[in-house]
Amino acid sequence: MARTGRRPGRQDTKEAILAAAREAFAEKGFDGASIRYIATSAGVDPALVHHYFGTKDQLFLAAMNIPMDPGKIIPQLAASGMDGLGERLVRTFVGIWDSPVGGSAGVALLRSAVRHEFAARMLREFITTQIMRRVLSNLPLDPAEVPTRASLVASQILGLAAMRYVIKLEPLASAAPEAVAAAIGPTIQRYISEPIKPFES
Amino acid sequence: MARTGRRPGRQDTKEAILAAAREAFAEKGFDGASIRYIATSAGVDPALVHHYFGTKDQLFLAAMNIPMDPGKIIPQLAASGMDGLGERLVRTFVGIWDSPVGGSAGVALLRSAVRHEFAARMLREFITTQIMRRVLSNLPLDPAEVPTRASLVASQILGLAAMRYVIKLEPLASAAPEAVAAAIGPTIQRYISEPIKPFES
Repeated sequence: MARTGRRPGRQDTKEAILAAAREAFAEKGFDGASIRYIATSAGVDPALVHHYFGTKDQLFLAAMNIPMDPGKIIPQLAASGMDGLGERLVRTFVGIWDSPVGGSAGVALLRSAVRHEFAARMLREFITTQIMRRVLSNLPLDPAEVPTRASLVASQILGLAAMRYVIKLEPLASAAPEAVAAAIGPTIQRYISEPIKPFES
Repeated sequence: MARTGRRPGRQDTKEAILAAAREAFAEKGFDGASIRYIATSAGVDPALVHHYFGTKDQLFLAAMNIPMDPGKIIPQLAASGMDGLGERLVRTFVGIWDSPVGGSAGVALLRSAVRHEFAARMLREFITTQIMRRVLSNLPLDPAEVPTRASLVASQILGLAAMRYVIKLEPLASAAPEAVAAAIGPTIQRYISEPIKPFES
């Protein structure tokens, strides 16, 4: 990733692939948008898409400018057991968003999702395919409850991000990450692992 | 309110007052913006502002297009005691936002607050002056804890609104109001009344 591009236009090619990917994911959804389709839209070979971005999951995260792979982080956090997972999740999330890179990417994502339907759809696809399907389905949870649990977790995490980083409401905006994790962690824990009645939608 | 305007330009005058109020509240904050200042900006007599809009609290809610007065609703909900207040709050909130008028006003407010710093400031002022100061300070809570509790409640309520009405993530978006209240009510209850360590900001 850090290699300097000897081939002229390499950055342009990557940008073209990302633009094609954003359009395809927003239009067709994660499952409907194939790497082949994205490559054709960008005018490149599918192998080049894999070469630059890896799997479709990784391309999707890159297209959304998501600075961490929840498919790697959440299983790490869950490896030490379900106890305290809520607090560890909030601490990790706040750690990423408090950093300059993670924070500006996160705020841009959030602003965009609230403004544009295509970005809202990308966020829905992200939560559905990357969080519900890739991550939560590997935790010891009843699959019938996963969508309800994930949408509740998402509501609290999104609200935390909006209040702390966009609206900047005090004292939440300046509170220490540990204090935020202690206050909001139990909410996430309840949404993940305590008995819950699944929503019928 | 429903009287038809015999005086020509009455609606224009009201709009001018609201526009002046929005600018003043966003610039100077709720406490810094006096009715007199707003009246002068709008080119009208302060008595006319009171005549059309009532108190400064009411003018502020009108300027923010907030379709309910939390200073009336929350004390009603708290009148039957602190037990179950979280669930009653969520049910009432979802009831208002599920309605066409409340929902479109709410979504507009939320989109605007995420996009524009002046609208974000209005939302902060709303939470600080209308929720923390007018409402929560009358509940049996330690005043030192009210700002922390209010910012936590706001984070979950805002996240619920964003996920259900703007991002429209299923199954939360289509879940029955009772089910949402049962799932999220206990979170709000914990933020309001269970032991909490105040944030230092």
